[in-house]
Amino acid sequence: MKGLWLEDRKMSVRDDLPMPVLEQDEVLIKVLLAGVCSTDLEMLRGYYDFTGVPGHEFVGLIVDDNGHPDLLGKRVIGDINISCGACERCLRLEPSQCMKRKTLGIFDYDGVFAEYCKLPAKNLTVVPDSVSDVLAVFSEPTAAALRILDQIQVKPSDRVIVVGAGRLGILIAQALKNTCCDLKVVVRRPEPAAILTGLGITAVYAEEIRGSLADIVVEVTGAPEGFELSRSLTRARGTLVLKSTFAGDVSVNLSKLVVDEITLIGSRCGNYPAGLRALSSGLIQVGEMVDSVYSLEQGLEAIDHAGEPGVLKVLIRQ
Amino acid sequence: MKGLWLEDRKMSVRDDLPMPVLEQDEVLIKVLLAGVCSTDLEMLRGYYDFTGVPGHEFVGLIVDDNGHPDLLGKRVIGDINISCGACERCLRLEPSQCMKRKTLGIFDYDGVFAEYCKLPAKNLTVVPDSVSDVLAVFSEPTAAALRILDQIQVKPSDRVIVVGAGRLGILIAQALKNTCCDLKVVVRRPEPAAILTGLGITAVYAEEIRGSLADIVVEVTGAPEGFELSRSLTRARGTLVLKSTFAGDVSVNLSKLVVDEITLIGSRCGNYPAGLRALSSGLIQVGEMVDSVYSLEQGLEAIDHAGEPGVLKVLIRQ
Repeated sequence: MKGLWLEDRKMSVRDDLPMPVLEQDEVLIKVLLAGVCSTDLEMLRGYYDFTGVPGHEFVGLIVDDNGHPDLLGKRVIGDINISCGACERCLRLEPSQCMKRKTLGIFDYDGVFAEYCKLPAKNLTVVPDSVSDVLAVFSEPTAAALRILDQIQVKPSDRVIVVGAGRLGILIAQALKNTCCDLKVVVRRPEPAAILTGLGITAVYAEEIRGSLADIVVEVTGAPEGFELSRSLTRARGTLVLKSTFAGDVSVNLSKLVVDEITLIGSRCGNYPAGLRALSSGLIQVGEMVDSVYSLEQGLEAIDHAGEPGVLKVLIRQ
Repeated sequence: MKGLWLEDRKMSVRDDLPMPVLEQDEVLIKVLLAGVCSTDLEMLRGYYDFTGVPGHEFVGLIVDDNGHPDLLGKRVIGDINISCGACERCLRLEPSQCMKRKTLGIFDYDGVFAEYCKLPAKNLTVVPDSVSDVLAVFSEPTAAALRILDQIQVKPSDRVIVVGAGRLGILIAQALKNTCCDLKVVVRRPEPAAILTGLGITAVYAEEIRGSLADIVVEVTGAPEGFELSRSLTRARGTLVLKSTFAGDVSVNLSKLVVDEITLIGSRCGNYPAGLRALSSGLIQVGEMVDSVYSLEQGLEAIDHAGEPGVLKVLIRQ
């Protein structure tokens, strides 16, 4: 089959990839539309040492149900964490933190930048007919944005600052706006500022907000430099949520976290049906976020383009 | 008066220090006994750029009540945070995080390594006659140890690891032991291991515990190297409490915190009456922790000795 291939931090387009081989409980999915995420770009910088088909944001059609006839022909989105079902975290009903997990297109499991992919049936959520492919493909990052609200209570009276207005930042800002909190989003360019303004969200530049203090700060710049600004905006005993993943370490003054008694929370994958609900109900909107759609053959151009400054969501249609 | 003086990261013994000048609500205290804390030692390394009398752990006698006659002649311990009473954190009843605070012997307020010190009356807790000076002088670090239990719930079923068994680590271990949790303390030397064993607490060396996972980890090594071990011992979605303050930054892989969804909590000063209760009731014991008692004239030797590896509490009797 056709697909992208990542090896030694280099991406190539290939047409000789083997079809996914189904193990028990796995179904075969024809990928309809896939999204490029910052994690895909970080993998080219060595964030994970992965060899295989990259990509984890998708909507697809089940073409081999492998013993789950209710799923055949259904359009689905899928949880990227392939869990063992038997470890401590799985038994605690936290499968996305499975201690033996594989991760779609990221770790030890081929991803979605190809004609076909596979996933365990338990990972899938059926997409209602009323939800378009373009909307459905945002389920994974939208679920990740909503994850913050599974972890902490954001109150209407809270002062909240989101630092970063890229692909994920704009989704997070919308998720937080729905709590009626006092929200500001730190941007670096006029384009995301315009999108946020159109969504009724206050966009500010770093120099306008430096010296302010918020009860909750979300760091989603995708870059090491974002941490220090985010920390400085967090009030004593406030909460700093980390959403950015990237290759490499950051120099942190841990004593400042101690003296200010900051709570720092790492935040990863969310609940996929919740992501789909937010999108289908319009509580989170993505209309302005699609930058461009590429074919699988143009995959390398798609990845390159997604890495350019200020580019929002790049999609790959299979 | 006699006292120690810190200036340009150098400590000296002086006998020409001015007596504290009382402002409204401040009372004059004759220091009876003071304790040397790791923060005092870190200030010599530039943790805070402080000029004045250092020291913040003390028990003393009120010799000028400045309009608070009920306090005259009372033996007291004191909260080290001198709060403004008017800022956002003070109005939220979080005076230890006052945004304009001064800190006894640490920031903009002379400390207790002298014959006399002063504090606002509201900062003081009267020490019952049944509690000795030696016990009372541990109130500040004991309160800081108990602060963890004001911030997070430690459950009897939790696996807890304390990394570091110095002055503060041994107090924290006892505070956590009282929750009946499954507790282990990482030590580097046989002496604290023996003290912990005597207290019924399991002491282990780093090489024995590497690869284990705990629900809650407390980092109290007082050194940058402690962070990475502590993080590696924290299970996915677990809690890592930071108690160490020291000069300088630490290189941190923030992405690991995100992927594991760790909650990292900075923890500082605690409730002083609670610290006193724990000590007077015997729930936290300090009998084995006093290394030596120096006079004020021997203050420099006391500080030097407290900085030697493995030395626990050094006291200065005025």
